[in-house]
Amino acid sequence: MQKNYQQKVLGILGGGQLGRMVIQSAINYNIDIHILDPDGNAPCKAIAHQFTQGSLTDFETVYAFGKNCDVITIEIESVNTDALQKLVDEGKEVYPQPHLIKLIQDKRAQKQFYKDKQIPTADFILTADKKEVLENADFLPAVNKLGKDGYDGRGVQILRDASDLGKAFEAPSLLEKLIDFDKELAVIVARNKRGDLIAYPSVECAFHPTANLVEFLFAPANVSQEIEEKAKKIAIEVIESLGLIGILAVELFVTKDGEILVNEIAPRPHNSGHHTIEANFTSQFEQHLRAVMDMPLGNPDLRIPAAMVNLLGEEGYTGEALVEGLDEAMAAKGVYVHLYGKKITKPFRKMGHVTILDENLDQLKSRALQIKELIKIKA
Amino acid sequence: MQKNYQQKVLGILGGGQLGRMVIQSAINYNIDIHILDPDGNAPCKAIAHQFTQGSLTDFETVYAFGKNCDVITIEIESVNTDALQKLVDEGKEVYPQPHLIKLIQDKRAQKQFYKDKQIPTADFILTADKKEVLENADFLPAVNKLGKDGYDGRGVQILRDASDLGKAFEAPSLLEKLIDFDKELAVIVARNKRGDLIAYPSVECAFHPTANLVEFLFAPANVSQEIEEKAKKIAIEVIESLGLIGILAVELFVTKDGEILVNEIAPRPHNSGHHTIEANFTSQFEQHLRAVMDMPLGNPDLRIPAAMVNLLGEEGYTGEALVEGLDEAMAAKGVYVHLYGKKITKPFRKMGHVTILDENLDQLKSRALQIKELIKIKA
Repeated sequence: MQKNYQQKVLGILGGGQLGRMVIQSAINYNIDIHILDPDGNAPCKAIAHQFTQGSLTDFETVYAFGKNCDVITIEIESVNTDALQKLVDEGKEVYPQPHLIKLIQDKRAQKQFYKDKQIPTADFILTADKKEVLENADFLPAVNKLGKDGYDGRGVQILRDASDLGKAFEAPSLLEKLIDFDKELAVIVARNKRGDLIAYPSVECAFHPTANLVEFLFAPANVSQEIEEKAKKIAIEVIESLGLIGILAVELFVTKDGEILVNEIAPRPHNSGHHTIEANFTSQFEQHLRAVMDMPLGNPDLRIPAAMVNLLGEEGYTGEALVEGLDEAMAAKGVYVHLYGKKITKPFRKMGHVTILDENLDQLKSRALQIKELIKIKA
Repeated sequence: MQKNYQQKVLGILGGGQLGRMVIQSAINYNIDIHILDPDGNAPCKAIAHQFTQGSLTDFETVYAFGKNCDVITIEIESVNTDALQKLVDEGKEVYPQPHLIKLIQDKRAQKQFYKDKQIPTADFILTADKKEVLENADFLPAVNKLGKDGYDGRGVQILRDASDLGKAFEAPSLLEKLIDFDKELAVIVARNKRGDLIAYPSVECAFHPTANLVEFLFAPANVSQEIEEKAKKIAIEVIESLGLIGILAVELFVTKDGEILVNEIAPRPHNSGHHTIEANFTSQFEQHLRAVMDMPLGNPDLRIPAAMVNLLGEEGYTGEALVEGLDEAMAAKGVYVHLYGKKITKPFRKMGHVTILDENLDQLKSRALQIKELIKIKA
């Protein structure tokens, strides 16, 4: 007899906050989750059914881990896709599919994919090394992105003019036309094995000026119905072109003349969907679970407008984390604090997030700013 | 330096579904939870930071468990309150307070308390044994309740007339006038050490005709504003008279002439508050945590009307549980399935619950009935 999802073990590569929030959802379905993470104190450690400390990029480690699971998924892209492919070849279910993780790991291949599929994206040039960047000085201002291993804002830099060329990446990277965008949106889409597909309402992201991390997020995005539909349509086009099973966060630029361009994608729960836990009918974490476990997808509608504030480690503090301002924050109606169980803080480390629900959109913005000022992660 | 709640270990006596849902909330606050439960496969087992298998009623076991915690609470009333009192005497924080757990454990003392405090409740007679029940045959029809150790409908029976007297309890019990009520309501109240107090909107409970368990629950209750306020006022009166710190579920009868009587109380999260996870701004499980950990209380308002259906083990099935109809149920908007991680089903065992959100109250009732027909827990 074939196992149904109530009897399957789900293995997740990565045991950070994203995996942690997936486990919080999985508890409701009695799904056993095994976690692989190099950090013995990873946020998932205490709540996973099984926790294995080990490298996500080592073939043997990933392969051995996967052999003990029925379905394998990820919460971070930097994983050994060869091991995942071998697991698929041997009959395991791996979602998102290994060849797609591999494609998305490489920002160069990702960009080429958009071009091949005629998905709108900023113009770009692939550069093999620093020399090739220098040869394309006339392409500036541009964003210089490392092909591989960038994460949470690392491996991305702006080259405004020739004076910035000295810091160009030496490794294979790309130059992307700097877009003078009006807004940054994100649309999360999900697709299961049966081919069911849903799209979340778009959200508006505000980035930290220097750390290149999402600082605030507002849902719904303050855009016209036309832009909203166009954004969803493009996100759906991306997941369908990929044929991806799982969840996909699609980051988009809205240019000043209303054009929409795909910036980057992430085939896993994403920072731009944290508010969905309280603000939407189905959270992105549960949606991810539903998509990879071949359950029916859940309704993605927004229940109430929301803002999300990332709680980043304060600059100047490294050591055992202490959260300031928690009491005052959590006393207010519609404020939801999520701490990620990380014992050690360091500058800009993602330590938690706060979601704020409010029918009034203007109030949401001021409340988000207040929370940002109120809660400080120090050591 | 005094520990704040971010550094305190919370011990919970009992590792069933109520503890499990408290842990799901506690994950967001990085609170370490230790569980004591006699069942090595208790629902909390896999997600507690520490799990101890042991008796809840044995003095030494409870005392030793509590010594390793900072704050101790319960998710079931049948615990050794002497051990808890000793822990208090030695400086541990125990909420609800041991003398109140002891009072509530004994339905006779509980009734006497209402009488002493002039809290409205059905008339009653305390009976030491079967003989004393027989002597009060003229008090029938009445409910015969065991003083101690009743749980989930056990230890409660209706004596309609003299022909039922044969089954009267032999142990210390009480006879309570059978109330020909119009509705059964429940109001959950919470109070923390600082004396902050909140009351949830009342909910309407529909009981299973034979198993004496809540089968359906609707929030808000379909009552007048006057009844709603009166119900809340009485629930507040109860928690204040007790001076209880923690959460208290107050079950109430509304009689046909609009009188409100306290039926029973439970000093812990309660079946009548399961819908609060998705339907209210703060769930009862998080509220319990907030109250016992001396955090600020959360807003109890209803976000959207809800129904709750208990998933009980089907009659005629005992063995490894399999859930039927899950896919169809979870495909619908606003349907939330919670399974409790119990491997073995038996008739009427509480295996999970489903919450349904819908703006339309009539639709809620028909959807709740559909879910009841759809999901079956078999073996």
